[in-house]
Amino acid sequence: MGEFELIRHYFMPLARSLGSHSVLVGPGDDCAIQRIPAGSDLVFSIDTLVEGVHFPLNYRPDYLGWRALAVAASDLAAMGADPACFTLALTLPEVDECWLRDFAFGLGKAAEAFGLVLAGGDTTRGPLALSLQVHGLVPQSTGIRRSGAGPGDLVVVSGTLGDAGAALEYLDVQNPSADQAFVLERYHHPEPKLKLGAALRNLATAAIDVSDGLLADLGHILEASSVGANIERSRLPVSPALNRLTGSAAGDFALHSGDDYELCLTIPEANWAIVPSSLKQQLTVIGVIESEQGLRLDGAAVVSESEAVGFDHFRRIS
Amino acid sequence: MGEFELIRHYFMPLARSLGSHSVLVGPGDDCAIQRIPAGSDLVFSIDTLVEGVHFPLNYRPDYLGWRALAVAASDLAAMGADPACFTLALTLPEVDECWLRDFAFGLGKAAEAFGLVLAGGDTTRGPLALSLQVHGLVPQSTGIRRSGAGPGDLVVVSGTLGDAGAALEYLDVQNPSADQAFVLERYHHPEPKLKLGAALRNLATAAIDVSDGLLADLGHILEASSVGANIERSRLPVSPALNRLTGSAAGDFALHSGDDYELCLTIPEANWAIVPSSLKQQLTVIGVIESEQGLRLDGAAVVSESEAVGFDHFRRIS
Repeated sequence: MGEFELIRHYFMPLARSLGSHSVLVGPGDDCAIQRIPAGSDLVFSIDTLVEGVHFPLNYRPDYLGWRALAVAASDLAAMGADPACFTLALTLPEVDECWLRDFAFGLGKAAEAFGLVLAGGDTTRGPLALSLQVHGLVPQSTGIRRSGAGPGDLVVVSGTLGDAGAALEYLDVQNPSADQAFVLERYHHPEPKLKLGAALRNLATAAIDVSDGLLADLGHILEASSVGANIERSRLPVSPALNRLTGSAAGDFALHSGDDYELCLTIPEANWAIVPSSLKQQLTVIGVIESEQGLRLDGAAVVSESEAVGFDHFRRIS
Repeated sequence: MGEFELIRHYFMPLARSLGSHSVLVGPGDDCAIQRIPAGSDLVFSIDTLVEGVHFPLNYRPDYLGWRALAVAASDLAAMGADPACFTLALTLPEVDECWLRDFAFGLGKAAEAFGLVLAGGDTTRGPLALSLQVHGLVPQSTGIRRSGAGPGDLVVVSGTLGDAGAALEYLDVQNPSADQAFVLERYHHPEPKLKLGAALRNLATAAIDVSDGLLADLGHILEASSVGANIERSRLPVSPALNRLTGSAAGDFALHSGDDYELCLTIPEANWAIVPSSLKQQLTVIGVIESEQGLRLDGAAVVSESEAVGFDHFRRIS
């Protein structure tokens, strides 16, 4: 097979996998065509991952495929959107069939797990990088914005925080311990909280996914909503594995490190009262929105917030 | 200003420029939100441009901004879609304010000219590259596919062919002649045929934009439609400038070189008869679709077609 046929061979199955039926025309034409159901809004986001910046050199291609789609889909979760389809712009230094096969395998597993179908793409020669655009749907005007947080709203996070950040220390460990393996899995295979986000879209007033660290990402909500917040350090949800691995530093990982792709939401108390208990099991109240601007930790101002906010697009993993 | 503020400063005006009102939420949230008008389909395409592959090293950033959006928007023209909005994934080796300002200027001029509003984006650190996804709209089920060409349909192209390909020879010329300047302008500032494509969406049976060369791109239509075509070399529309610059080779540029971003369409004779004369002035009939598969030039089979088809995604300019 030539390069073009190889690419088609490995990616076309992703266009026919599980997912939305809203895609009328998939890969292979000048454009894809999606029919948006009446009464729905289209929700979309584009994300780029560059080798050596967002993932390590020689990163396993199947992990990369999963992780790239998970990172992109996490933005849909943060809007409360139901997943529909995605496009892939893949830049490769060379066409290596094994790499392509493994990458498509990981990407395909993620696409199936998240309910996203490949709608189109572009493959070019150059330094290894990927841009993915994900498309989701929400009932009209129900997408969760960053700007809706109000004083008194509870600040809530899903899952546990800090695991993926701690995993960066162990990427090259040959025989990881059980705890190291746990946090490594959190780094390699993040699970976007799509169902949780969609279930909360009429209950949460604001949401963001934790990609750059809780303080930085919550800071975006506070800025967009023109409010402040107080977070209680003792309430931060931390995994037993992270506690054992990092001891007293676990809280710092939970506050500062990214890549967990959990959700941070603000929910009025009245709405929190009617959140189903099955969802509450995945959520932890960590603080409250206040009218006074700025981010506080146990009542003390967090000074580095604005720096953290400004740095997100240019952080490096190595 | 910090890097983040610089990026926001130069790109946010593009989110408020002329364009579609279908974008309800623009840059600055986890996702953008677009409301698709009832009765319309969403048409979208993603394209990547890599420095040294799709544009020269140290290419003028204002030219790059225009060219990147033109290349992407040309796919909308080929579907007959009305332009709506776009996302930009920009990877930069460093944040250079002059580069950013000039790039945003060129991109903004193109966005205004084409009627596309910036809906979202992602800026990352890495080797210079851009991925743009463009969104357009068509009345439901009217998007022009590649697969609709039928025997007897006229093969029609817009404008003139080969100019941008010839310009590659003159990219470094310090004082270009008038003819060189003409073809260079065609390379640097391609104009996607958005209005023409939209006007023909109920008349053309298939369309593609000429990005990789007429033979290669027409080959995609023939393959998708399971038909063949005969093209008459003497009918190829060639500019006087290209004729003077390349002499007897002008026809080869028109057949093989890309980057013109003209449209190649197939139109049944009955429909051609009712194409308004104002549109016909922009169009040239160059051949006819035949039931016998394969591409013929003045009746002789074109042998290199399949190679050309397979090579498009990995061609280099240098």
